[in-house]
Formats: sequence, structure tokens, C-alpha cells
Amino acid sequence: MIFTVQIKVMPLKDLLDPQGKAVMGGLQNLGLNNVSDVRIGKHIDLQIEAENREAAIATAEEAAKKLLANPVMEVYEITVS
Amino acid sequence: MIFTVQIKVMPLKDLLDPQGKAVMGGLQNLGLNNVSDVRIGKHIDLQIEAENREAAIATAEEAAKKLLANPVMEVYEITVS
Repeated sequence: MIFTVQIKVMPLKDLLDPQGKAVMGGLQNLGLNNVSDVRIGKHIDLQIEAENREAAIATAEEAAKKLLANPVMEVYEITVS
Repeated sequence: MIFTVQIKVMPLKDLLDPQGKAVMGGLQNLGLNNVSDVRIGKHIDLQIEAENREAAIATAEEAAKKLLANPVMEVYEITVS
């Protein structure tokens, strides 16, 4: 069975996010002054062939841990749809 | 009222996604051969101060159109939580 998996990788809450700060500056220059606390991460969509949902999640966990997210700086979240 | 808004920006389905292809190669080198169709985009979390949900979505749309997404190459999706 093929599962569609989404992995969201975001910078840890406690860390500075310079890219987010830059985007917030840009938005304020555009006149959007009601925007705050911008944080930018990655979104990864992938297809996983697995016997069941649990196996698909296990593969996604392995992908996130080994390649997609840096646990020192990032947290990841896996969603199967 | 402050709304927490998430904007997902992904490369258009019809376009090549070289970053996704590279990650798929990396995952297969790690032995995860059951993974396919990897696509990588951005995930932006932000706080928007607005009178109501509709106004918050309108601000997020404006941010996405003017700064966050390039409509020639990307699609965006807004979620308010």
C-alpha cells in the first residue's frame, strides 16, 4: 500500500530564526504590520510504500532522523494522510 | 485577536523539484528504497493580529502573494488554527 506522508521540519522554539526575522521585516515593509512571530521551516511531501500505516510512519521517522531534520536545531512532525 | 496561521508553499506539481530529487537519492542511499515522489517546500508559521478569521486569512493571502510564494513556480495553502 502506498501512503502519502507529510513531514514538517521547523526550527526549535528556543532558537533564533534569522530567515523568519528577515521575512517579518519584509512583510512589515509591505505594510503588513499586524504580523509577528514568523518562523520558517521545511515541508516535505513523500510517498511511502509500506504494509501498514505504522510501517509507513516508521520509515518517515527514519528519514526525518537520518536526513531531513537536524535534532540539535529542528523538530519534526509526521502526518500520514 | 491573534490568529496562528500556517502557510505551506510547495513547488507546482508539473515542475521538476531538484531539491526533492536530491533528497530522494539521499534516502535511497540510506536504504529507504520504499520512498518515492519526494517534494520539498516551505512551511511558514506566523501570528496575525486581526479582527476576525476572515481578516487574518486576507492578510496571510497578501503575505503569500506578495512575498512568500512565487506564483510562477509555487502554490500556497493557508491554514488558520
